[in-house]
Amino acid sequence: MNFNEKLRSAARTNKSWLCIGLDPELTKIPVSFGDGIEALLKFNQTIIDLTRDLVCAYKPNAAFYEAHGLKGWELLHETIKYIPPQIPIILDCKRGDIGNTSKMYAQAAFDILGVDAVTVNPYMGKDSVEPFLSFKEKGVFILCLTSNPSAVEIQRQLLYVENLPSSAKIPKASGTELFLHIAELVTEWNVAGNAGLVVGATKASDLEAIRAKIGAEIPILIPGVGAQGGDLEQSIVLGSNESGEMAIINIARGVIYAGKDPDFKTGVREAAINYRKNINTAIEKKRAL
Amino acid sequence: MNFNEKLRSAARTNKSWLCIGLDPELTKIPVSFGDGIEALLKFNQTIIDLTRDLVCAYKPNAAFYEAHGLKGWELLHETIKYIPPQIPIILDCKRGDIGNTSKMYAQAAFDILGVDAVTVNPYMGKDSVEPFLSFKEKGVFILCLTSNPSAVEIQRQLLYVENLPSSAKIPKASGTELFLHIAELVTEWNVAGNAGLVVGATKASDLEAIRAKIGAEIPILIPGVGAQGGDLEQSIVLGSNESGEMAIINIARGVIYAGKDPDFKTGVREAAINYRKNINTAIEKKRAL
Repeated sequence: MNFNEKLRSAARTNKSWLCIGLDPELTKIPVSFGDGIEALLKFNQTIIDLTRDLVCAYKPNAAFYEAHGLKGWELLHETIKYIPPQIPIILDCKRGDIGNTSKMYAQAAFDILGVDAVTVNPYMGKDSVEPFLSFKEKGVFILCLTSNPSAVEIQRQLLYVENLPSSAKIPKASGTELFLHIAELVTEWNVAGNAGLVVGATKASDLEAIRAKIGAEIPILIPGVGAQGGDLEQSIVLGSNESGEMAIINIARGVIYAGKDPDFKTGVREAAINYRKNINTAIEKKRAL
Repeated sequence: MNFNEKLRSAARTNKSWLCIGLDPELTKIPVSFGDGIEALLKFNQTIIDLTRDLVCAYKPNAAFYEAHGLKGWELLHETIKYIPPQIPIILDCKRGDIGNTSKMYAQAAFDILGVDAVTVNPYMGKDSVEPFLSFKEKGVFILCLTSNPSAVEIQRQLLYVENLPSSAKIPKASGTELFLHIAELVTEWNVAGNAGLVVGATKASDLEAIRAKIGAEIPILIPGVGAQGGDLEQSIVLGSNESGEMAIINIARGVIYAGKDPDFKTGVREAAINYRKNINTAIEKKRAL
């Protein structure tokens, strides 16, 4: 089963396109989990127990573990092992380097940690992404447009039109923003059908242009809804395909910190149920269009 | 002492702008080091012993350690601890994420591993790089132009001229390639004087334009000389400042695999001496211009 099949299967079983970001911080988790670094693992395990029937994927961000050194990597391993095998794991690590080095990052994620997908950075071009894509059963989400304010400095830069003789530097009427160029490149790179995109949710209208460019089958991972303020309904309606699928809404803080002692468990589960419900309402709306 | 001071001090003490890439692979190191993963540490320690008086910095690439899981991270820690304190360590990890996440990557590198500098990816813009730059005593080398063939797909895309009303999409006569736009942004981000650039050596003529844009004080880390085929003399002449300084030539395979049993040690040391000599000859040439 390749990544897209595993993703769709989990989404259909759990009736959910909600992905939960496993990004735990010691200062933010309830005191009942203890105060040593082991608390992070207990916290993750509790979140997984509470939400495993409500998600299409989990997304641990490597930085939250790397920041704790060796022990952090151990906790990342343990967290990954704890996730039920039928639920895809997307390691958010935004890696990328020249070919032989990217290959090592791919091995670290897919062979050593055993995750189902990664996020990668496209700045170095195809040959930096291909070593990830060559794991054909694994998913590779390529950064396209992110929701942080500075994204405009680079991702939204307008490019000259391509494929014209260099003497004729005539701009397109509308120009092409770099992130759309990336989306176009990814459709070319996607030979094995295992590429995806990361598109932040704060400017949902851009999702429409991106989805139009990449067709129905490439999944879009959408962080930035919730704590970062993006619009959930618009993200689904514009980011999903005609069946209302393949738009993955990632929520981290909005779920994992939704519970406070002594009602921690209830708070987390209710938040996840609520996000799933809102996502499914938006999917219904999309299908009715 | 901030990073640039430490770098210059090591370069002057060792009369060298050679940086050695500590990117060991089990299949490539001499059998005399053993065949378990511990061999990688012994190999690194031997390389360091043989070259510590010949370099301005060491640059371990995180991928080569991450690919071995927890044990690999342990070896990276041990390697870093073994490097003499007066020699700067550049962790080549090409990280980058939204602000609070980049902060964790910065902590992992600077607080946990204790390196002096990192490489980062600029695709997400200023707020993804700032958490690294906010460690003012540390160096932050931002990817600008890399030497892999696919770099052209993104880094060399031509941008519209900026700062014109959006109705007047008039291209500059020559256009601006994205990597030059990045170089310009980095000069703006460099408030604390601790930014650097990564510029691959395969198209050395671009170094001239980049150095002209960033001025004399921003160090340029230049991989791609040697195994990747870039031109050493041109890289120094065009990439260094008027004093012939601040162009760091990184060599990995060309030094660390230069020795074969039973003359491993001689081979490595002679290769490092030879690179240093060629770099210094180029610096003399630059100063004579």
